[in-house]
Amino acid sequence: MAEFFTTRTIAEALTGFRPGRRTGAETVPLAQALRRVPAGPVTAPHPLPGFARSTVDGYAVRASDTYGVSEGLPGYLDVTGTVRMGAAPDVTVTPGNAVAMPTGGVIPDGADAVVMVEYTAETMPGTIEVVRPVAPGEGIVRADEDAAVGSVLVPAGRPLRPQDLGMLAAAGVTSVTVYRRPVVTVFSTGDEVVPPDTAELKPGQVRDATASALAALITDAGGETAQAGIVSDDPGALEDALRKALGSSDLLVVSAGSSVGTRDETANAVAALGPPGIWCHGLAVKPGKPTLLAECSGVPVIGLPGNPRSALVVFRLVGMPVIRLVGGCTAPPPGPTARARLSRNLASATGRLDVVQVKVSDGVATPVFGLSALLSVLTEADGCIVIGEDATGLDAGTEVEVTLYA
Amino acid sequence: MAEFFTTRTIAEALTGFRPGRRTGAETVPLAQALRRVPAGPVTAPHPLPGFARSTVDGYAVRASDTYGVSEGLPGYLDVTGTVRMGAAPDVTVTPGNAVAMPTGGVIPDGADAVVMVEYTAETMPGTIEVVRPVAPGEGIVRADEDAAVGSVLVPAGRPLRPQDLGMLAAAGVTSVTVYRRPVVTVFSTGDEVVPPDTAELKPGQVRDATASALAALITDAGGETAQAGIVSDDPGALEDALRKALGSSDLLVVSAGSSVGTRDETANAVAALGPPGIWCHGLAVKPGKPTLLAECSGVPVIGLPGNPRSALVVFRLVGMPVIRLVGGCTAPPPGPTARARLSRNLASATGRLDVVQVKVSDGVATPVFGLSALLSVLTEADGCIVIGEDATGLDAGTEVEVTLYA
Repeated sequence: MAEFFTTRTIAEALTGFRPGRRTGAETVPLAQALRRVPAGPVTAPHPLPGFARSTVDGYAVRASDTYGVSEGLPGYLDVTGTVRMGAAPDVTVTPGNAVAMPTGGVIPDGADAVVMVEYTAETMPGTIEVVRPVAPGEGIVRADEDAAVGSVLVPAGRPLRPQDLGMLAAAGVTSVTVYRRPVVTVFSTGDEVVPPDTAELKPGQVRDATASALAALITDAGGETAQAGIVSDDPGALEDALRKALGSSDLLVVSAGSSVGTRDETANAVAALGPPGIWCHGLAVKPGKPTLLAECSGVPVIGLPGNPRSALVVFRLVGMPVIRLVGGCTAPPPGPTARARLSRNLASATGRLDVVQVKVSDGVATPVFGLSALLSVLTEADGCIVIGEDATGLDAGTEVEVTLYA
Repeated sequence: MAEFFTTRTIAEALTGFRPGRRTGAETVPLAQALRRVPAGPVTAPHPLPGFARSTVDGYAVRASDTYGVSEGLPGYLDVTGTVRMGAAPDVTVTPGNAVAMPTGGVIPDGADAVVMVEYTAETMPGTIEVVRPVAPGEGIVRADEDAAVGSVLVPAGRPLRPQDLGMLAAAGVTSVTVYRRPVVTVFSTGDEVVPPDTAELKPGQVRDATASALAALITDAGGETAQAGIVSDDPGALEDALRKALGSSDLLVVSAGSSVGTRDETANAVAALGPPGIWCHGLAVKPGKPTLLAECSGVPVIGLPGNPRSALVVFRLVGMPVIRLVGGCTAPPPGPTARARLSRNLASATGRLDVVQVKVSDGVATPVFGLSALLSVLTEADGCIVIGEDATGLDAGTEVEVTLYA
């Protein structure tokens, strides 16, 4: 493979690796729509709240009847009725009169403001004094103030947040058309790799750590994992397995064995799958260099490094964005970050992105070092910092942005 | 109620409102353990990786056999065998000899380092030259370097992250004992409130927006929602409904109607539930003041304001932390935040927390204003800023921390 070895930067991968696959749409009930990605904007079928409502407990009035009143010179109004919650008013407000209002009640005809109960007093049964003037519109939310008919309640492409679900419920939208979750089929390879439920390991065997962690990252990116299990290292086995899964997958991920042999095998299997084939054989990132990006008939194929830690770092950087791309998510949700000061100098090579795991405490980011073969470096870390391709390193005390792990 | 009206700050609520309820433990398979909260620390049953492994492709050697070698003066070693992936070595390394190693292979007896293949050349079949010396331990990950027996793989109380699942899989831990998800029963009240699937509203009716959004926030906090639906405003109906749910709930939430009448009704119903009863009748926060915190036999009860927007703001501030408390989460996951400069002056009253919704663009936070009755203020916002109890406001240009909505 060496003569065709193409390395790309992470930035190039994010902008240039754009397989055409997109999931279709499906309709889900609101109760299952959290973080799902709307396939189109959802608009308001009616105005909201749908009627002019009182925002306070008080009295619906004609604002002009309150002009000039004060503590020293109150105005007096006759109370001609009461609006009940959830019901149409059975009275109108005429000059010199007021109607008692609960917060949220329907503003009766004739009224253009609501005086808060705090600025009134019932001086005798059926009469109130008003000690503060109100302007027209005061104490009222307009019939279409929360949403006008046809206005966008939630945009396409942005995962639905809790308040978005509330807004849709308010509008009577009880199901949403969303992109189907991308099905990500995960293959593990490597003669040394055995399933996690293997109780006793033979010498040289390791349990598959990557697949379990990948499934979690796939969930976080809005995808659905199909575990294809461990593929044997027989010649052609990986190619057969990939080809078989291609029809039912929106993305293929190969968690490769760590030796050079299995890496080459992944490249060969992917190349055999069909055009346009391999987009890059390596990424300028540490850890994570031996990463393969490919595309087969629009379906992205990602070959990950054999070290679990490297695989997970790369999958966060490029795998999760590709899942979002395929799943129609054009406005990825923000992730947790923290500003912190670096505890020590960090060296970095130019032309390569360096991802350094850190612990964060009291505003100080302390690097967690260790071989890239060690998963514990990731589990000990609170997050990571990324040193850009142009940088030659960072000095102790530099303020850095930490991507936190949640 | 007015004579017993107790108002507390958010800070007082977070430290002082500590109902004793905790969920029990249950065991879940690893594939369902993402974000679940371990009920105890999980320790390594065996050392990891369990055997000394090569971290590179190359040759296992005795380091002393490479001392002093260089490009100009290579050393020569006989290759006496090859380690295969996933298998025990069938050779040992003796002085003057080397064994071919794949990355991840088992280090054979007698070897104490691995020379990278890049620093070797096969000069004739069965013989390599070595052009760089290695130190003992180089190119090797120790048998317990990722985890020693008994070391803590994941701590209690912190929701499991993707890499934690990987580490557990590596250790052969395929199920985890976690706190049961707190069951949060949500009641909606208010004569005007109807279910979201009500196609045609009668005058004055509004669909229940809060319950759908609350369910999403409950999910995000690790809880499980039991929707009790809309409770009628008949006297005693809410008290009956709360009492009935108490046995099967870890937390009760009443999304109150917005009028003063329904608020009082919630307070009366909660007070009747039993000791120790109401902890506070109001919170010093805007929006969200009419919030009731109570406890009945250890089960927290939260009465939320009638405005959906106020209810959701308060639930993020105090409801989600209480769910985490009940569900054993002592190390809440970090949430997304952003630093931004405020676009304009903001006034704030001292003694009260002000929560201001903002849009964030190009590092500028622009407040989204609107009546607290408007849910659209929340759906238009990218996040919120919190102005502390001691502040009298913030000046335009102030750098603020925005809590982002994901």
